[in-house]
Amino acid sequence: MTDKIQSTEAYKGVRDFYPEDMAVQQYIFSVWSDTAESFGFERYDASVLEPADLYKAKGAENEEMVNEQTYTFTDRGNREVTLRPEMTPTVARMVAGKRRELSFPVRWYSIPNLFRYERPQRGRLREHWQLNCDIFGTNDFTADVEIIALAYQMLLNFGADSKNFEIRINNKQLMTDFFANKYQITDVETLRQISGVLDRKRKVAESIFDGLLEEFVQERFEELREDLKLNIDDFVKLVNAENQNSTLIKVKDGLKDLGIGNVVFDASLARGFNYYTGTIFEIFDVSGENNRAMLGGGRYDNLTEMFGGEAISGIGFGMGDVTMRDFLETHDLLTSNITAPDLMVIPTDPKYNLESQQIAMDFRNQTGVSATVDISTKKLGKKIGDASDRLVDYIIVVGDDEATSKSFTLKYLNEDKKHTGTIAEIIEQFSSDTN
Amino acid sequence: MTDKIQSTEAYKGVRDFYPEDMAVQQYIFSVWSDTAESFGFERYDASVLEPADLYKAKGAENEEMVNEQTYTFTDRGNREVTLRPEMTPTVARMVAGKRRELSFPVRWYSIPNLFRYERPQRGRLREHWQLNCDIFGTNDFTADVEIIALAYQMLLNFGADSKNFEIRINNKQLMTDFFANKYQITDVETLRQISGVLDRKRKVAESIFDGLLEEFVQERFEELREDLKLNIDDFVKLVNAENQNSTLIKVKDGLKDLGIGNVVFDASLARGFNYYTGTIFEIFDVSGENNRAMLGGGRYDNLTEMFGGEAISGIGFGMGDVTMRDFLETHDLLTSNITAPDLMVIPTDPKYNLESQQIAMDFRNQTGVSATVDISTKKLGKKIGDASDRLVDYIIVVGDDEATSKSFTLKYLNEDKKHTGTIAEIIEQFSSDTN
Repeated sequence: MTDKIQSTEAYKGVRDFYPEDMAVQQYIFSVWSDTAESFGFERYDASVLEPADLYKAKGAENEEMVNEQTYTFTDRGNREVTLRPEMTPTVARMVAGKRRELSFPVRWYSIPNLFRYERPQRGRLREHWQLNCDIFGTNDFTADVEIIALAYQMLLNFGADSKNFEIRINNKQLMTDFFANKYQITDVETLRQISGVLDRKRKVAESIFDGLLEEFVQERFEELREDLKLNIDDFVKLVNAENQNSTLIKVKDGLKDLGIGNVVFDASLARGFNYYTGTIFEIFDVSGENNRAMLGGGRYDNLTEMFGGEAISGIGFGMGDVTMRDFLETHDLLTSNITAPDLMVIPTDPKYNLESQQIAMDFRNQTGVSATVDISTKKLGKKIGDASDRLVDYIIVVGDDEATSKSFTLKYLNEDKKHTGTIAEIIEQFSSDTN
Repeated sequence: MTDKIQSTEAYKGVRDFYPEDMAVQQYIFSVWSDTAESFGFERYDASVLEPADLYKAKGAENEEMVNEQTYTFTDRGNREVTLRPEMTPTVARMVAGKRRELSFPVRWYSIPNLFRYERPQRGRLREHWQLNCDIFGTNDFTADVEIIALAYQMLLNFGADSKNFEIRINNKQLMTDFFANKYQITDVETLRQISGVLDRKRKVAESIFDGLLEEFVQERFEELREDLKLNIDDFVKLVNAENQNSTLIKVKDGLKDLGIGNVVFDASLARGFNYYTGTIFEIFDVSGENNRAMLGGGRYDNLTEMFGGEAISGIGFGMGDVTMRDFLETHDLLTSNITAPDLMVIPTDPKYNLESQQIAMDFRNQTGVSATVDISTKKLGKKIGDASDRLVDYIIVVGDDEATSKSFTLKYLNEDKKHTGTIAEIIEQFSSDTN
């Protein structure tokens, strides 16, 4: 038994969600889920605990990731357990597990919390939440169009202006063909390294970028740098691959047909070479203040392979709660984060607390408003001030006069209006106001 | 790198939530949160990761619990971390951490997932979700009335009949006084053991119960057994303690004033002697088929003591998702667990997929329905059958005729009704139906 005074600090690198922060979190989650469901996506989830093997299967690089960057421990049954660092292996496991029962294509979304064992630093928490949306079981290009349209609609539904962001697209297969056909680079590991370099294009000076390219293409680095600046039609023509390549153009044209115009081709968009096999995309905040990727995703055709059976093709994206909240704050899109009840019943003395509870219950049950009682021992003026500060809409004071006469006043705090009478009478007047 | 075929099994003792199960889970969570918010409760949350010390502070018994029944491991910074087994220590930590800023009393709720390291068995999972509702910062008896009224309303809002359950109440202080005054038992450890025995009263035969009581009160076991059968007024008179004791009667009368009549006094209701200090209660399913406690809670006055400063009084309850779902299934209160989109647009051929996406988008944006496209390669009849099976409300087929004539038909699947015309026209007709 420890008798020392306990710290009230949370565990290092994770967040406590007090009501004002939880309200923002719930608002973000509700826009995410409402938008996903408006597109016919169904929600799923799983435990944060997963067998560690699930993350080791993707190759040596991942083994290192599991050992060094995840929370992995051994349980008393000698099982290695990992706190999920990403949702994709979990959803691949679930889809593979019911491949015979599911009616493909399926549209699934989830809002899991994910864990990374990192040194905590600004914006790099050990736990965060991430929306994951995926379409499994089709490689039709219109699924690519749909998933990007869904990502786009997410931002609009938060009140964002499409001028503030752009959708950057590319195609992994096209890039593989490009490096094979024009630069005779086909080694997977080399392609992965190039991919890492491409992802740094916007972050480093051109001379540094040139230097990085030089390692792979020697004196042809200027040629490669200029190739990467081509527009979508010229680039596709340059590669001249027939099937996959045109997917990129079909996706771009499809988005245009849906009225989504802020789409740009970006040959330097890479997103790692391990994972994706077709369309890849990112939504980028171009407003200046918050210049960063808001979300990213793409098509992966081999994801369920490690569970055996025929591979199931999928396309999806993920977006994080921290990035989302930063975006909303930067663009002043969070109006209010207060979760106040509609009605506060205010007894002037604790002896009226119970009668006030009855009034709150009558309003709750008969009008559908949320209602609560200020059972603190504060003075009346302070109680009314608190209700106003919390942005409560209506108050009813219960004091000696009201308790004796059974005549109460429902006061509107946002307009110059009130109703006086018995509880039954003011409920009736209130209901006719709001109908 | 492991090349073996991965298992699609979840980690032992936890659940995967496929969409049909997730829909039930989300339904339960939404009734919980809507009801809590209708009472003015604000939602909070924290990470599942907590410092292990948080659970060790409550005494030797807890040290054992932390070591043997929780997931506890040491991180690379040599911190002992526990996956939270219950929410109360977390919320006590959070309340204590902001005691100077919070305007008490506060009404808080949360729906955390909790972890116990147990041998998995039916109904005893290693991870479950639990609604937690608490009022902190007042010991006014009307808070006790309110929290019980909230628990009661939870069940009504799921469609339960109040005849199917009863609210059992008792008071820890009253029981302490009872054993001190009448049986001269004051030792805390002995009281805890008696509490364990009382909790078994309904589960064992009377002769066994008598034998258990005998250990503590010797030949007076029959007297004690009869005392425990007294009605509320006689029991309170017997104890004759003046302050706390009458709280029990005030709470019962207060609930009656709110129209909550299915409340019974139960002197054998104990709920462990460590934790609670005043009112304790349980809601019990008395329908016969599911005879068990649905939820339980009580008042604790010392909970924030371990964080230093003056103790903050609270009262709360918890209820689990597994118990809740069993209750709903037993009483046939789960109507549908399908999450279908309202409108399914059905292309007869993949070449109409994109045009179908546009139609879905127009409906989504202009009417507010959820809408999606069947981009599978199934035959038309199968697609229509699938939409009907999924309980979709409306379909629009997009084939050669429609694509050429630009005249489409919106078909209602639940009634003999349809609209034909351009997309703009059928959106207008549909909107006037639903307004």
